[in-house]
Amino acid sequence: MTASDSTRPRILTGDTPTGRLHLGHYVGSLERRLAMQETHDCYFIVANVHALTTRSDKPDEIRADTLEVMRDWLAVGLDPDRSTLFVQSEIPAIAELTFFFSMLLGFGRVMRNPTIKDEIIVKNLGDTYSFGFLLYAVGQTADILTFRPEAVPVGEDQVAHIEMTREVARRFNQLYCGVSDQTPDDDHLRAGGLFPIPRAEVGRVGRLVGIDGVNKMSKSLGNAIYLSDTAKEVQKKVNRIFTGRQNPTDPGDPNNVLFQYLDAFHADKAMVADLRERYAGGRVGDGEVKKELGSAINALLDPIRQRRARYEGDDQAILEIIRAGCAKANTAAEQTLAAARKAMRMHFGERSLGYR
Amino acid sequence: MTASDSTRPRILTGDTPTGRLHLGHYVGSLERRLAMQETHDCYFIVANVHALTTRSDKPDEIRADTLEVMRDWLAVGLDPDRSTLFVQSEIPAIAELTFFFSMLLGFGRVMRNPTIKDEIIVKNLGDTYSFGFLLYAVGQTADILTFRPEAVPVGEDQVAHIEMTREVARRFNQLYCGVSDQTPDDDHLRAGGLFPIPRAEVGRVGRLVGIDGVNKMSKSLGNAIYLSDTAKEVQKKVNRIFTGRQNPTDPGDPNNVLFQYLDAFHADKAMVADLRERYAGGRVGDGEVKKELGSAINALLDPIRQRRARYEGDDQAILEIIRAGCAKANTAAEQTLAAARKAMRMHFGERSLGYR
Repeated sequence: MTASDSTRPRILTGDTPTGRLHLGHYVGSLERRLAMQETHDCYFIVANVHALTTRSDKPDEIRADTLEVMRDWLAVGLDPDRSTLFVQSEIPAIAELTFFFSMLLGFGRVMRNPTIKDEIIVKNLGDTYSFGFLLYAVGQTADILTFRPEAVPVGEDQVAHIEMTREVARRFNQLYCGVSDQTPDDDHLRAGGLFPIPRAEVGRVGRLVGIDGVNKMSKSLGNAIYLSDTAKEVQKKVNRIFTGRQNPTDPGDPNNVLFQYLDAFHADKAMVADLRERYAGGRVGDGEVKKELGSAINALLDPIRQRRARYEGDDQAILEIIRAGCAKANTAAEQTLAAARKAMRMHFGERSLGYR
Repeated sequence: MTASDSTRPRILTGDTPTGRLHLGHYVGSLERRLAMQETHDCYFIVANVHALTTRSDKPDEIRADTLEVMRDWLAVGLDPDRSTLFVQSEIPAIAELTFFFSMLLGFGRVMRNPTIKDEIIVKNLGDTYSFGFLLYAVGQTADILTFRPEAVPVGEDQVAHIEMTREVARRFNQLYCGVSDQTPDDDHLRAGGLFPIPRAEVGRVGRLVGIDGVNKMSKSLGNAIYLSDTAKEVQKKVNRIFTGRQNPTDPGDPNNVLFQYLDAFHADKAMVADLRERYAGGRVGDGEVKKELGSAINALLDPIRQRRARYEGDDQAILEIIRAGCAKANTAAEQTLAAARKAMRMHFGERSLGYR
């Protein structure tokens, strides 16, 4: 077992538990996390408190989804011995910093966050959303800053949240750590700031289309291939993909969803180039392409399935990994909180948090 | 030293640290707290995090005010051996429950809180207020419910906050503890609810006029007599009270500010009745009434001054009392939080909080 290597640059990212993870998550973030695990000190958060924003009436579902996300992470290869895998609700410092940070953000600033506005529309919340739905935007700044990462790998749609996080970090450093408002972002720590100004790092592929060929892959649209699907389920879903092509001799669209997937998941780029040429020239049928694609996806998913088998049905094993990760995360979080409280002159006694 | 007697009904109340306490606080709440200390299990909170809502740029001031409120409490006779005197920022469970409770309140519900609306006007906040200014309304529900009191002694202006607290308690019990929405408030605990539905207990005298005779006594209006004023300062302020009466033989208004104060602070009701009659009849001058009033106020403040002398200039002693109170408060708070997290299925490991 290797402890997190603190000489590596630290990053934080994570998922809100909304169910099993799918290929969209893999391409959008998990693949990248696996790579960063080799080079960075990684903190991965399951944001289960944020799941309450729209499902406070479904506590059992959120708990099951939390365990499921952790199981998917482990299956994919996120490694609790190298990275810190933890669950938001177990880290008191996050809630405490959320409260402090809410004082540093104008109410109007939070309401103008374009991601918030989009989510109100997408999730069809009208004007019935909870106060917590807005608080979660502030909470995200604390999820991140509690761990003082240099960077936050995110999808395009999360950049507005990171921008707000950067504002909070700057404001805190200026108000409570004597950092000048002339200090460049990269110099905040050197100038005595508690928080780095974390960069948003937007990934290469932000968006994977679903098997309907139209919408972003998403659980709620029923167009997803899950990391936990069996090989047979995968091939069946791939076979269902509709391209509109009538005949194997018709010229095919070499940029349709089949080829988007082949580009994303097939390891042999030369073979994909050859298939594409034949497809455009009407020299290969959809069936053969789909078979090749199903195999490619299953080649990716096979080692994931094998790792998953260790944890399938064993909630106890998952809980133990969560506990160990949360204990590690709390060590870092308590250090940040103690320093923040000292800087804010809100420090009256010494506290020690035990977690197991 | 006697531990809090848990067979007594529990109450929670407190102050936001905005400076030294004055006679308005004494009449409006402190006097009542002293009485309740004899009959109740009392939790008294200094809400220092809420002070950030409008003064996040003045951390040193808030810290000094926090110590000063605690000093005033001790001077008045709130007794750390019998009651739990504590500081909000030291209790992580409050922030964590705030986050949870924010999910149970509609955004519109918080915004419609009349106390919030009034404060935006009174404090001249326009539309520049912080997100935390709204969050504090939710935070108050957590300040209270963390300690599961039966009742909350408050001023009239806080009743709207308590109503919101009652809604949160009901909703939590219904969503996470299986309490039916038909269950009467008083039966929530018996029906398995975690939180009692706390009553607002509005005090006898909600409002004391300032020495200007017009506005509510308030630090910001400069019309206050402080518990920490010297006897000389008190008499000087009393002498400055303007009644509009020109001559000792003019009939005086027997309900003017002088007599309001005499009613509030003079122990000898018969003597006040006699003075009042002579005042209305033009048979006593303002000067004599003011002398009597100054003496009455000083008679009240003298024992307070004596107790204060023990702590004057000794921040260390105050800090030790704060630490002991926060340790006690955290014991109760952690119990509530653990039960709340279990009810919400947000419980993955065991934590232990040490505080000293």
